Amino acid sequence: MRMIDLIEKKRAGKELTKTEIDFFVKGLTDGTIPDYQVSAFLMTIFYEDMSDEEITALTLAMANSGDVIDLSSINGIKVDKHSTGGVGDTTTIVLAPLVASIGVPVAKMSGRGLGHTGGTIDKLEAIPGFQVELPNDKFIQLVNESQVAVTGQSGDLAPADKTLYALRDVTATVDSIPLIASSIMSKKIASGADAIVLDVTTGDGAFMKNIDDATRLAETMVRIGELAGRRTMAVISDMSQPLGEAIGNSIEIVEAIETLQGKGPEDLTEMVYVLGSQMVVLAGHAKTLEEARGLLVEALESGKALEKFKEMIQNQGGDPDVVDHPEKMGVAKYTIELLAKSSGCVREIQAESIGVAAMLLGAGRKTKEDLIDYTVGVKLHKKVGMDVTEGEPLVTIYANRENVDDVKQMLYDNIEIGETVEEPQLVRKIVTK
Amino acid sequence: MRMIDLIEKKRAGKELTKTEIDFFVKGLTDGTIPDYQVSAFLMTIFYEDMSDEEITALTLAMANSGDVIDLSSINGIKVDKHSTGGVGDTTTIVLAPLVASIGVPVAKMSGRGLGHTGGTIDKLEAIPGFQVELPNDKFIQLVNESQVAVTGQSGDLAPADKTLYALRDVTATVDSIPLIASSIMSKKIASGADAIVLDVTTGDGAFMKNIDDATRLAETMVRIGELAGRRTMAVISDMSQPLGEAIGNSIEIVEAIETLQGKGPEDLTEMVYVLGSQMVVLAGHAKTLEEARGLLVEALESGKALEKFKEMIQNQGGDPDVVDHPEKMGVAKYTIELLAKSSGCVREIQAESIGVAAMLLGAGRKTKEDLIDYTVGVKLHKKVGMDVTEGEPLVTIYANRENVDDVKQMLYDNIEIGETVEEPQLVRKIVTK
Repeated sequence: MRMIDLIEKKRAGKELTKTEIDFFVKGLTDGTIPDYQVSAFLMTIFYEDMSDEEITALTLAMANSGDVIDLSSINGIKVDKHSTGGVGDTTTIVLAPLVASIGVPVAKMSGRGLGHTGGTIDKLEAIPGFQVELPNDKFIQLVNESQVAVTGQSGDLAPADKTLYALRDVTATVDSIPLIASSIMSKKIASGADAIVLDVTTGDGAFMKNIDDATRLAETMVRIGELAGRRTMAVISDMSQPLGEAIGNSIEIVEAIETLQGKGPEDLTEMVYVLGSQMVVLAGHAKTLEEARGLLVEALESGKALEKFKEMIQNQGGDPDVVDHPEKMGVAKYTIELLAKSSGCVREIQAESIGVAAMLLGAGRKTKEDLIDYTVGVKLHKKVGMDVTEGEPLVTIYANRENVDDVKQMLYDNIEIGETVEEPQLVRKIVTK
Repeated sequence: MRMIDLIEKKRAGKELTKTEIDFFVKGLTDGTIPDYQVSAFLMTIFYEDMSDEEITALTLAMANSGDVIDLSSINGIKVDKHSTGGVGDTTTIVLAPLVASIGVPVAKMSGRGLGHTGGTIDKLEAIPGFQVELPNDKFIQLVNESQVAVTGQSGDLAPADKTLYALRDVTATVDSIPLIASSIMSKKIASGADAIVLDVTTGDGAFMKNIDDATRLAETMVRIGELAGRRTMAVISDMSQPLGEAIGNSIEIVEAIETLQGKGPEDLTEMVYVLGSQMVVLAGHAKTLEEARGLLVEALESGKALEKFKEMIQNQGGDPDVVDHPEKMGVAKYTIELLAKSSGCVREIQAESIGVAAMLLGAGRKTKEDLIDYTVGVKLHKKVGMDVTEGEPLVTIYANRENVDDVKQMLYDNIEIGETVEEPQLVRKIVTK
C-alpha cells in the first residue's frame, strides 16, 4: 500500500477502506509516512469530506495508536463529557459531583489549560491540597467507592491525533468536520469512555462560529460514536458570551460551589442540568432526559451534590472547608469595579476578548511553562440582554497588580451597551441518535 | 508574511498577490517553508485553481529562482519549442535545422530523457562525434553564424520548479493545470526564450488524456506567456498512437533525415510544418501561418533544410556523412519482424505501451544511471486506420538480444486489429492569443 494512492483515491471522491485508514494512522504514528504526504491528504479530506464509516475508522485507529485506558474494573457505564471549548466554562466541576451524587460513576480525566484560564485540573488545584495526579489504582478505587474522581491525563493517549493536530495547525486544515470529530472522539475513546456526552459550543467564543457547522459536527460525532459502539449525545450551546459569570480559577471554583448550593448563575445551572441529564440517561440511571433532570434537581436542591463535592475534595487530599470558606483559596490583592459608562441594554459581551482580559491578569497560560495565578480573574455582573445604568458595576476585576488599565480597556471595548436585545438562547439544539 | 495565511487565503478562494507568490517561491527555494506547508498549498491550488495573474507570477518567480540564460547576444527573436511529451517524438531534430534554414535563429537547449527513449540530446549523441555540451560562448557563436545549435541544459534552471515537481510527484498534485503550466513556462523563460511554441499532446500516450484538459492547459499557457511578455502559440496534437514510425534513438535520427529528405512519415512531417510555421511567425519571418508554411515547404523540398542539418552536425563535431550513410551510427544485431496475426484494420496502437516495448529493448533509461542503447528500438509499419493482412509485418524490432518474446508480447497486446476505424486527426487544435 502506498500513501500516494490513498491521496489519489480520496481526491477522486472515493471512500477509503478501514485497512487503508489503518495503514495511514500506522504510518503517521511510526513516522514512515512523511509529513508532506500527510498534509496533502489532510487538505484532500478538507475538500472531499469523509463518510461516517471513514471517520469512525480514523477515530478508532487514532484511539488505538497509543495507550488506551482500561476502566473496566469500575462498576457501571462510564460516561465522559467533552466540551469543544469556551470561556468561563465551569460545568465539569459542577457536573462531576452532581452526577456522581445520584450514583453514576464519574471517572473524569481532564487536561491542563492553555489559554484564557486554566483547565479543569488547574482550577481544582486552586483548592489547597487537592491532588490531581492520582495513580491509576487509586483513581479507580475512588470512583468505585465514592462514584467520582478527577485526575490529570496519564499515559500517551492518541499520539496519532497529537501528530495530526500539530500538522493541521500549520497547514490550514484545522476546521474540517471529519478531522475535528475524529480528533475529539479518539481521545474520549482512548480515555476509556463507554458513552460520551458532547457540548458543542457555538458563537464568537467558540471553535464553531455558526450553528450550521456546530450541528454538522455534533451530528457527525453522535453518528460515529454510535458506529464505534459508544452511545453518544450532544448539546449545541451558545458561547457568544462567557458561560456563567466568573472567568478565572478560584473564582470559578466559588461559582461551582454556589451552583451546587442552588444559587449559581442561571445559564451555568441550566447547562449543568442539560449535560447532566444526558450523562444520567447514557449511564442507564434514567430512561428519559426529563426523568434524569428530575433526579439531578433533587440531588442539587437536597444538598446531596454539594456533599459529594466535599467528599471528592476530601478524597483527593483537598480541604473541604473551602466550600464554606472559599477565602481559604486565597484572594487577589485588588478588587476593582468596572463601572458602566452609559445606560442601556448589554448587547454583546465578546467571549474571546473577555477571556483575553482574564489572561492579561494572569489567570491563564500563554505557553506551557507559564504559571497560573489562581486568585485573579473577572466576574461579570451583567450578561447579554440585561439592563444597566450608567455608573453601575459591570464587571469586578480581581487582580494582583494595581494598574489594570489594559484590562479595563479590553473589557470596555468588548462589552457593548445600547438598544434592547433579547437574551440569547443558551441551549440551541439537542442532538441524539 | 506567514505561509499558513497564504494557504488559508487560497483556500478561501481568494487571489494571491504577486508579493505573496514571490514570498512562497523564495521560501520554497531557500527551504524556509517546510514541505508539509508546500504540499498543503499545492493541494489547495489543485482544488481552487489560479487566475492567469497568479500563474504568471508563479511562473516568473520560478523562472527567476535560479540561473536565467541570457541569449541577448544572439540576433533576432529566439523562439523555443516545447512538447508536453509523447512517444516517438522526433520533431525537434527535424524542426531545428528546418526553421534555421530560412534564417530563424534556433538556440535550442534540450534535456536528456528518462523514459521510453532518450531525449533529444541523447538521440543526437547517437551521431558519432556529436557534442551536446557546448560552452555558452560557443553555443551563441554557432547560432549567430549558422542559425542553429542544440545543447544540453547548463546551469541551475528554475530550481524552485524542481523542488515543487518532486513534491507534486509524491502528493498527487501533478495533474493541476496551473501547476503544469507554470512548471513548463518557467523553464522556457529561464532558458532565455523570447517567444514560445507549445505542442500539447493529448491521448493515451500523453500527459493530458483528453482534449478538454489539453485545451485548458494550452489556452492557459498561451495567456500567461503573453502576460509574461513572451509571445506564445500552441498546437494540440494527437498522441493516442506514437508520432511517426520510429521509436528509439538512432532510428529516430534516420527518421528525421528521411523527413528532411521529404520522405518521412506523413504525421511527423505535418507536425513539423505546423509547429515550424508557428515558430517562423513568432520569430517575425512571416506574417501568417500559411506564409510561414510556404517558406518551410520550400526549404524542405529544395534540400536547404537537409543541408542545414549536415551543417549543424559538422558544427557540433559530428560526422555529417551519417545523413547519407546512417549505418555509421551502428546497427542492432538482430532485426526481427513482428507479423500480423490476423487481417483487418489497425484500430489502436497504445502509445505508452509501445514506448515501454522500446525501453525493454534498452532504448530508454529507467533511472538516471542507466545507459542507453542507441541502436535498438521499434519501427511501426502500420498506423491506426491502415489495413493489414495476416502475416504482413506490423513492426520491425531492432534488438541486441536474440530472444525478444517479452517485447513481442507487449506489442501484440497493444496493437489492436479489427473493424475499420478512421485515421485519427493529428492536429486537434491551434491555440493562439
